[in-house]
Amino acid sequence: MNENNIPPGTLYGLGVGPGDPELLTLKALRILRAAPVLAYPAPSEGDSLARTIAAPHLPGGQTEIAIRMPLDIKQFPAECVYGPVAREIAEHLEAGRDVVALCEGDPFFYGSFMYLFERLVDSHKIEVVPGVSSLMACAAALAAPLAARNDVLSVLPAPQDEDRLAARLELCDAAAIVKVGRHIGKVRRVLQHLGLESRARYIERASLPTERILPLVEAPDPAPYFSMVLVHRRGEAWK
Amino acid sequence: MNENNIPPGTLYGLGVGPGDPELLTLKALRILRAAPVLAYPAPSEGDSLARTIAAPHLPGGQTEIAIRMPLDIKQFPAECVYGPVAREIAEHLEAGRDVVALCEGDPFFYGSFMYLFERLVDSHKIEVVPGVSSLMACAAALAAPLAARNDVLSVLPAPQDEDRLAARLELCDAAAIVKVGRHIGKVRRVLQHLGLESRARYIERASLPTERILPLVEAPDPAPYFSMVLVHRRGEAWK
Repeated sequence: MNENNIPPGTLYGLGVGPGDPELLTLKALRILRAAPVLAYPAPSEGDSLARTIAAPHLPGGQTEIAIRMPLDIKQFPAECVYGPVAREIAEHLEAGRDVVALCEGDPFFYGSFMYLFERLVDSHKIEVVPGVSSLMACAAALAAPLAARNDVLSVLPAPQDEDRLAARLELCDAAAIVKVGRHIGKVRRVLQHLGLESRARYIERASLPTERILPLVEAPDPAPYFSMVLVHRRGEAWK
Repeated sequence: MNENNIPPGTLYGLGVGPGDPELLTLKALRILRAAPVLAYPAPSEGDSLARTIAAPHLPGGQTEIAIRMPLDIKQFPAECVYGPVAREIAEHLEAGRDVVALCEGDPFFYGSFMYLFERLVDSHKIEVVPGVSSLMACAAALAAPLAARNDVLSVLPAPQDEDRLAARLELCDAAAIVKVGRHIGKVRRVLQHLGLESRARYIERASLPTERILPLVEAPDPAPYFSMVLVHRRGEAWK
């Protein structure tokens, strides 16, 4: 695309951090306060975590676009949700209004921001503001290093079969198992089988007032959306 | 230890982010401004990056402890450097003065903070404030998602032999190769062998004015300390 044809507005993918509104960066705060239009992911009903994190910092008066996820997301291809939202955002950018997309944690670390990014990156100005991710917030909450020295650290989404999960766990020193949800039973079985259960901790809602840290055996089934399991295969991280 | 015997001061492991002083969190800023004592890693001569990041935010008048790394670190066990520093910090904590240890990126993500942490965690109050890590800053600088959907993301320190590095690269979808330094030639060979060279980007000093992004073949040898190689095995992340 000819550079002269690129619309004047910028879409910001803004990492708002893991939950505590004080874990926003100064850069995110500056951009947030100046934004005429805000977009954010939200459940089919109720509050958006990303907006709740940003709320104490909002000056008020912004146009807001709630990106509501259908209850059964498998019935709705991403295009049904993100296609219309991307077009709505594009109209703002073309009219010269910057749009801030609020992202829990970091926009490029398993964030739904990529659905907007891939639809607009070729035709619009996009800037990503990195944020404190839940990975780092969980390690801080557990008061145990995530990775040190020459540790191999793997981030493993739980929706994969037991053998693959086990093979990947065996080739790392530390692991963060994310997207645990209804896979928590499988995660527990795999870690038990590898003799790693006592080296794993379950954590949900890190940095929020409702944060909980539990031994793996006490983790709820299904686990809530904002939860992860951290495992350290060596050392005394979980003593 | 009896809780009543724990000294009154708190040691903060404070993530100051990857380099841009605006990527400090609001929480880090609050704690930094109130700190009577600052400690930070520094080279054997010259400026500390962590202190440079914090500098615009310092009110002045703090006691400062520069933790200077000897030129040839292999000749000096960690205890030679961190033993005396941990004792100096402990004296401040015992006198009721909080100490802030400035950490580039995030304190628990391959940070040297762990050397202080492991020496003081059993006897003193420690709080870790998570920061934006270089991992997220590099992805933002490259304008390409780090990991999405059910990608397995591995963080692989370069100081490991070629076969192990290759095996781990084959079991992930995306990788961040860290601690590249004088291992850059080996990293390039392994990625070439796996047919992944065109899917890798070299990045140094992400978020700083001196940030550079290069194709792997153009990366300097040795690479500077603050550099990493990001690889995405699938998709169009590096198109």
